[in-house]
Amino acid sequence: MSKTLVFGHKNPDTDTVTSAIVYAYLKQQLGVEAEAVRLGDLNNETKFALEKFDFEAPRFISTVVGEAKQVILVDHNEFQQSADGIEEVQITEVIDHHRVANFQTADPLYFRAEPVGCTATILNKLFKENNVEIPANIAGLMLSAIVSDTLLFKSPTCTEQDIKAGEELAAIAGVDVAEYGLAMLKAGADLSDKSLEDLLSLDAKGFDFGAYKAVVAQVNAVDIEDVLGRQAELEALLAKNVADNGLDLFFFVVTDILNNDSTAVAVGQVAEKAAASFGATIVDGRISLSGVVSRKKQIVPVLTEGLK
Amino acid sequence: MSKTLVFGHKNPDTDTVTSAIVYAYLKQQLGVEAEAVRLGDLNNETKFALEKFDFEAPRFISTVVGEAKQVILVDHNEFQQSADGIEEVQITEVIDHHRVANFQTADPLYFRAEPVGCTATILNKLFKENNVEIPANIAGLMLSAIVSDTLLFKSPTCTEQDIKAGEELAAIAGVDVAEYGLAMLKAGADLSDKSLEDLLSLDAKGFDFGAYKAVVAQVNAVDIEDVLGRQAELEALLAKNVADNGLDLFFFVVTDILNNDSTAVAVGQVAEKAAASFGATIVDGRISLSGVVSRKKQIVPVLTEGLK
Repeated sequence: MSKTLVFGHKNPDTDTVTSAIVYAYLKQQLGVEAEAVRLGDLNNETKFALEKFDFEAPRFISTVVGEAKQVILVDHNEFQQSADGIEEVQITEVIDHHRVANFQTADPLYFRAEPVGCTATILNKLFKENNVEIPANIAGLMLSAIVSDTLLFKSPTCTEQDIKAGEELAAIAGVDVAEYGLAMLKAGADLSDKSLEDLLSLDAKGFDFGAYKAVVAQVNAVDIEDVLGRQAELEALLAKNVADNGLDLFFFVVTDILNNDSTAVAVGQVAEKAAASFGATIVDGRISLSGVVSRKKQIVPVLTEGLK
Repeated sequence: MSKTLVFGHKNPDTDTVTSAIVYAYLKQQLGVEAEAVRLGDLNNETKFALEKFDFEAPRFISTVVGEAKQVILVDHNEFQQSADGIEEVQITEVIDHHRVANFQTADPLYFRAEPVGCTATILNKLFKENNVEIPANIAGLMLSAIVSDTLLFKSPTCTEQDIKAGEELAAIAGVDVAEYGLAMLKAGADLSDKSLEDLLSLDAKGFDFGAYKAVVAQVNAVDIEDVLGRQAELEALLAKNVADNGLDLFFFVVTDILNNDSTAVAVGQVAEKAAASFGATIVDGRISLSGVVSRKKQIVPVLTEGLK
């Protein structure tokens, strides 16, 4: 029970899983008995990265209660995204790159959040500040996180610091960023084993746009026709979801990771209005979103403005 | 309106005022148009430090609305301790050494909190991380903050990092820590020109303990009877404050800076419960807190637990 658990958010992605492994490693080097754990199943992209650099998946936990008295959060801080029972344990550290909200402690802690594209970019600084060398396989994990969160440095969330950290880590890991990064993104964008129902829930988030209740879901694809080839079936599924959940809009975005464009399928009473928010119209049931890859920076703000 | 304001908490103390001045200086060196401001009157200790190192008091503001669109918080993060209108502006950075609570942003930010004794100890790192040299008078302010917050390195909040930073800064400032530090603390503990009303507001902070609304105030004294000699008058004043502000607790702590003990006077519907949190009872209207000098480490966590 004296062990400190290190974990990222629920519905784990590559940054969350690798940052838990990487920061647990750094804390161990500094004499802390730390163990990386995960709060959910690994996606295909993360599995690819762990295999490439020869790491096992962290142990799964469903709650922190009974597991540890002290925990470290990486890649998140909001309690509703964290482990069940998080209010029952002491959070000694947070390393994150998101907004701060729905977070509270009784005691002072080490809280390090920076407005960069990826948690691994902050971890890269922490190795330096603590004078701990980064092994090649750990650098590989950190590089994977940066590639994933920035879509190979192409997302508008990517900062100069992320690019610089990515270059440093690629050199330590001894991999070609463009080649490895694309292979990893493609592994994550391999949708062949996913049903349309899976795709809808893989990365769906609810939003209130003015008076309208909406869901914006996003999937990455190498070939968008892998998903949009089943458009009639997809639209029926979205319409059912809209009806079942009383939505005004289901905005389903398929992002082409090779060309850095997106195509959306919108269903609901404000679907046309949603398209118009981007200065677009619905053509053959599709909305073309040229140059759009980031839900956080390029989709949600536009819908917030267009549907207010 | 493009200026970024830097400020600490209401009822400013030495760490809060000097850290605003010091961090505004660092940000200016990094090309940011930053201005240090304050949210309240200076205490005698802070005036002593500013005079010693030849600084003017920062400009007073009563609200951030109309003053700036972007702000940086030092030495606090809880909104109820911050400027009026804080929800209306963008918080771009927080540099702090307290618990995190009642804080929220819409966007990612730079949030750097560390469990050390003083904000200045973190600022000392930030100068190094940004390769900016610390001028002698700035080092003097930072040293003053460390001496104040750690009661000359005697508080349980004091860490090895604070001691090391204090030594470095004393060397840069060219002052004898023990001699200057004691003179500064005594200037702050000179309560002869203060009314009880002054003492109540000198270093009072609001807290929500579970469902209870509380204020925890602390004053340093060389002789605690300077304050507690007027106990009946003090209790009446606390009761009025509780009634006027709808509080459940006013917890007023007098700290003996020579013997490193405290005595509290508590008023409000949960006063007995507050005493019981420390395993104590109210005797002759006083709660004896042996060995307690730190509100942050020895008082707030105990009340958080006891009143939850």
